[in-house]
Amino acid sequence: MYILVTGGAGYIGSHTVVELINHGYKVVIADNLYNSSFDAVARIEFIVKQHVPFFNVDIRDKEQLSKIFETYEISSVIHFAALKAVGESTKIPLKYYDNNVNGTIKLLEVMDQYNVKNIVFSSSATVYGDVTRFGDNSMIPIPEHCPNDPTNPYGKTKYVIENILHDVYNSDNKWKTAILRYFNPIGAHPSGLIGEDPLGIPQNLLPYLAQVAIGRRDKLSIFGNDYNSHDGTPIRDYIHVIDLAKGHIAALEYLHNLQNDQGLFREWNLGSGKGSTVFDVYHAFCKVVGRELPHEVVGRRDGDVLDLTANPKRANEELKWKTHLTIDDACKDLWKWTVDNPSGYNIDNYSWKALSANDLSNRSHTIKVDDTFKVSIMNLGATIQNVTYKDAPVALGFVTEQEYKNQSFYIGATVGRYANRISEAEKLKLSVNENGNTLHGGKFGFDKKDFLGPVVKRNKKENSTTLEFYLLDPHLENGFPGDLGTLVKYTIASGSIEIEYESELLGKADETFLNLTNHSYWNISTGSSIDGTKIKMATNKALEVDSKSLLPTGKIVDREVTGFAKGSAGIDTCFVLEQQSVQSVDTRSNELQTVLEATHPDSKVKLVVQTTEPSFQLYTADHLDVPGKFGPRGGFCVESGRYIDAINQESWKKSVILPKGETYGSKTKYAFESV
Amino acid sequence: MYILVTGGAGYIGSHTVVELINHGYKVVIADNLYNSSFDAVARIEFIVKQHVPFFNVDIRDKEQLSKIFETYEISSVIHFAALKAVGESTKIPLKYYDNNVNGTIKLLEVMDQYNVKNIVFSSSATVYGDVTRFGDNSMIPIPEHCPNDPTNPYGKTKYVIENILHDVYNSDNKWKTAILRYFNPIGAHPSGLIGEDPLGIPQNLLPYLAQVAIGRRDKLSIFGNDYNSHDGTPIRDYIHVIDLAKGHIAALEYLHNLQNDQGLFREWNLGSGKGSTVFDVYHAFCKVVGRELPHEVVGRRDGDVLDLTANPKRANEELKWKTHLTIDDACKDLWKWTVDNPSGYNIDNYSWKALSANDLSNRSHTIKVDDTFKVSIMNLGATIQNVTYKDAPVALGFVTEQEYKNQSFYIGATVGRYANRISEAEKLKLSVNENGNTLHGGKFGFDKKDFLGPVVKRNKKENSTTLEFYLLDPHLENGFPGDLGTLVKYTIASGSIEIEYESELLGKADETFLNLTNHSYWNISTGSSIDGTKIKMATNKALEVDSKSLLPTGKIVDREVTGFAKGSAGIDTCFVLEQQSVQSVDTRSNELQTVLEATHPDSKVKLVVQTTEPSFQLYTADHLDVPGKFGPRGGFCVESGRYIDAINQESWKKSVILPKGETYGSKTKYAFESV
Repeated sequence: MYILVTGGAGYIGSHTVVELINHGYKVVIADNLYNSSFDAVARIEFIVKQHVPFFNVDIRDKEQLSKIFETYEISSVIHFAALKAVGESTKIPLKYYDNNVNGTIKLLEVMDQYNVKNIVFSSSATVYGDVTRFGDNSMIPIPEHCPNDPTNPYGKTKYVIENILHDVYNSDNKWKTAILRYFNPIGAHPSGLIGEDPLGIPQNLLPYLAQVAIGRRDKLSIFGNDYNSHDGTPIRDYIHVIDLAKGHIAALEYLHNLQNDQGLFREWNLGSGKGSTVFDVYHAFCKVVGRELPHEVVGRRDGDVLDLTANPKRANEELKWKTHLTIDDACKDLWKWTVDNPSGYNIDNYSWKALSANDLSNRSHTIKVDDTFKVSIMNLGATIQNVTYKDAPVALGFVTEQEYKNQSFYIGATVGRYANRISEAEKLKLSVNENGNTLHGGKFGFDKKDFLGPVVKRNKKENSTTLEFYLLDPHLENGFPGDLGTLVKYTIASGSIEIEYESELLGKADETFLNLTNHSYWNISTGSSIDGTKIKMATNKALEVDSKSLLPTGKIVDREVTGFAKGSAGIDTCFVLEQQSVQSVDTRSNELQTVLEATHPDSKVKLVVQTTEPSFQLYTADHLDVPGKFGPRGGFCVESGRYIDAINQESWKKSVILPKGETYGSKTKYAFESV
Repeated sequence: MYILVTGGAGYIGSHTVVELINHGYKVVIADNLYNSSFDAVARIEFIVKQHVPFFNVDIRDKEQLSKIFETYEISSVIHFAALKAVGESTKIPLKYYDNNVNGTIKLLEVMDQYNVKNIVFSSSATVYGDVTRFGDNSMIPIPEHCPNDPTNPYGKTKYVIENILHDVYNSDNKWKTAILRYFNPIGAHPSGLIGEDPLGIPQNLLPYLAQVAIGRRDKLSIFGNDYNSHDGTPIRDYIHVIDLAKGHIAALEYLHNLQNDQGLFREWNLGSGKGSTVFDVYHAFCKVVGRELPHEVVGRRDGDVLDLTANPKRANEELKWKTHLTIDDACKDLWKWTVDNPSGYNIDNYSWKALSANDLSNRSHTIKVDDTFKVSIMNLGATIQNVTYKDAPVALGFVTEQEYKNQSFYIGATVGRYANRISEAEKLKLSVNENGNTLHGGKFGFDKKDFLGPVVKRNKKENSTTLEFYLLDPHLENGFPGDLGTLVKYTIASGSIEIEYESELLGKADETFLNLTNHSYWNISTGSSIDGTKIKMATNKALEVDSKSLLPTGKIVDREVTGFAKGSAGIDTCFVLEQQSVQSVDTRSNELQTVLEATHPDSKVKLVVQTTEPSFQLYTADHLDVPGKFGPRGGFCVESGRYIDAINQESWKKSVILPKGETYGSKTKYAFESV
């Protein structure tokens, strides 16, 4: 049974999804991405290290919404999806009523149709309106029984929805309805991967202050310092978004713990119960940033009042929930999120597009570094799909997902768990896919899997962008022991792609073995063949292989390569760099060493391959055959990695065995320049 | 510029449409007919004697709604469309929020899109909730500033919509918004043609009482007689629906009189300001009915309160509107509506279907009298479309509108303004459509016009049903002088159709001339030819006609007809009934006289034709030719009416000249029996 989270790509929604999964729930997200980013979903998946089903639907579209209920068995709904800016709501009220109220009506209609009658609703303390209207302060801190009187369309939509939910409950007492009235959510996930990403000018104190700190805004305006508080600024109840997210789990569990036939309609404040002034928060954030941030006290703002602090007693007692994190925690987490993502989810020069109509699991991610260099990478196989240097493609790739699925040449793909051949695969209980061997990871290797992510980050100073993909390959997949977590990190800079692999054994085995590489086919000629490419090798040592089995004999022999002349014999050889140890499972502490330089007289393009690895397979693609697209010698591969079949050679073995608690790692870099 | 009335087929909507048109407005109606009947629209048209554009759309369907704004230039909207039953709203609240709130959101979005920003909104005194909660009676009579606190989903939808309208006005001060809060609407249109037609058990006092009076309910329950009123029953503010409708005109005019750039959001109570108890109303209605109606005092009903009387001062002063009609007036009108329409718009044995997808102006109306007799009549030409006697068709007719438009044989049609030929038509400035003559009314005669209506009423005792169609034929249409109003009344009983024509000259000329008939083609054989039909004539006198012009010479000659033997000469002759005067323009005071009996040995069916008219054209359809459907001798016509070309014969002329203030009339009856 799944929890449907509407608006699960938004600020509070995304944090709640993470907490739900941390608490063992299965989650489906529905979001129209109107005011949010699918990147948040990709990052949620990164945090929880699993795929989270996502539907890009507008909840007002009952037909689309119904499909979710048809596809997944939904037990409960946590309903965030809404427009949420108070100021905007006064300008475009109809859009607010349509999105929020009509959206909820449609959601409830579909829920009712599918007999799903548990709902946790994202309401707001704005339903209380100006509680200082009760002159005697009898309503501060604000209890749930405080009469409602929202003062703006946003708050009214929440108020109306609460009423609708109440009327629905009255009409059918099987509904279990939790109304959560949020006070002031702040902070971000401590991973720095998800956080608040307001469109336009932030309307709230901390997001604004964070933008001042990161240099996107000049200074903070403080609206009035003549209130009756300890420092003259108004008092609000700030709550860390993680605490808030956990409030949803508590409410959900409260509903689930009710008797089957016991309905409920109940409101709970989610607040700390502790008021903080604007200056309190300002100082806390400045402390984290390490400097005084520019600010100016200006006049009071219309509609502001002295004190809006929650009385959270009901939630404390009934939901067994209270806040644990402080404003200092929130400031710290917000600052990490801000520093790591200075412009939120929006990354300069990065764009993505879907590769299938209804599923965003596999997308094509493009980094346009500058006018000379552009790289696309997709989730399927964390595959390098397209590399363009000076307007010319220098790697083979396809446009559609189907084209990748129709071929078996690992074009651009990450190869794992085990690149190249493993002999006697049956003895190791591995998936056999070539003459008794396991080739390139077996039948359902990394190249056939949608990696999670990417987490995209930009290093403005170096004009580089990193894309991190993640794959959790389960125990016994293709026969390999242990749950394996693998991070594939691409760093795209001007003219270069650096690939870093990092794997950890996560459980179910004490050790496993692996060997990762990238299987891009490079072509720096101006035509469809690599003929004429000149090669400068850093080594002329290669593994001798049995000509029939293509498995190493254990001997190292000399092999000279200077290029791929037209008509010359094909190459499919593992060259070794004897100065590199074959005992290390993590080679990343090695310097990147230039192992091969390729040039072509027609294009005047040079490809320089560097790696931390002890060997690389050089392959001239003599068997490549994708009708209508690519033929023999269409590209060449430089597959850095561990020695072929190392797992079966006692003296090489250590380089591919990953014990629990250690880390597998390597780096390889492909760089292009004009000569 | 048109006024769009949403929900214009409903109780208050239909009365408001009538008042709008009476006040010179042009109106478009939008209604989804979910809770109302198109018959109400047909009857509105009957009352106002004009076509009112109607769109069968649900306002939640923006695409369909937009088409109205594309088709008509809308200046303002009066918005009634809503579900409105308090009790039902507590059971299916989502449907109420969806229809009412979401419907209004969609309407406002479309209005905004087409820059239509004047709206009169149908609100309700239910928004005030239980005003006795102000213990000191400070809010009775209820003023508009009384705080709102609706106590049921219906009332809440009205309250939410008021808030949405207010927010929209706040966001864009160009909106001119009138909120009309109704108290208790009662009564009906004095014509008895439109009124309240509640589905299921009436929830309101007077509709319930009316059903008791007409025998549909046993007795009225009076909920509590221990309130602090003069007779112990609760006090409400009843308002005649005509007064209420006029309140909308007043509000609309108030909005229209504002400066162009002056927006408005303003609420007005529409009530009398005078409270009446349940017993007051009960006694008033009993007085009109003329007897004590069964009633029983039972316990108080949940949610009822002593007094809900309006303070209508604001509407009185600002809108210059106040109620004029009394509870006695309302009871009288309600009783007429009830007696004339004992089961509301729903008539036993009557059904209709549309003849074109998007236009209900021409519909096919079927009366199934019993198992032996069924008649369909359509608006186009008030045409007899289908007559079935003992499962066999006895009149020629088509299924589709297009088939009628594709032929020129007047099949089943009402022929007017002038049946048969008028010679020297050009001298009379008439539309010439046959050899210098005007035939059957000219190029655009009655047969080509959609008649308004029908008003369908059933006489249960006589097992007969009347269908009244109306046509307003404008001055100089086909050249005829004067606006002519013509009522075509069909009375369908077991085996018989009686047709009554009644015309009045409505203006623009002092006199006009006309001659009306029905052009059905009868066939009582069992095949596609009338050959073998035996005829018994009441007369052998006929008008002599010039064989070339087919115009009468003025002479009366003998002509014997005994049947239509196979191969016999065709007949197209005007027989005269010398005992009938040719001086009378209204022959309805004559007895219906049997003029012709037709039988056929194969079918054993007899057709008896009776009329009050002085002559009839007998025509054996020798020129009939509708390929694939009907050929020569496919039917015969018995077209009762005035002498051919009487307008051009001094001694016959008086029978066709209609002076202002007089009435043209005739009756003809076709009856079938088995022999």
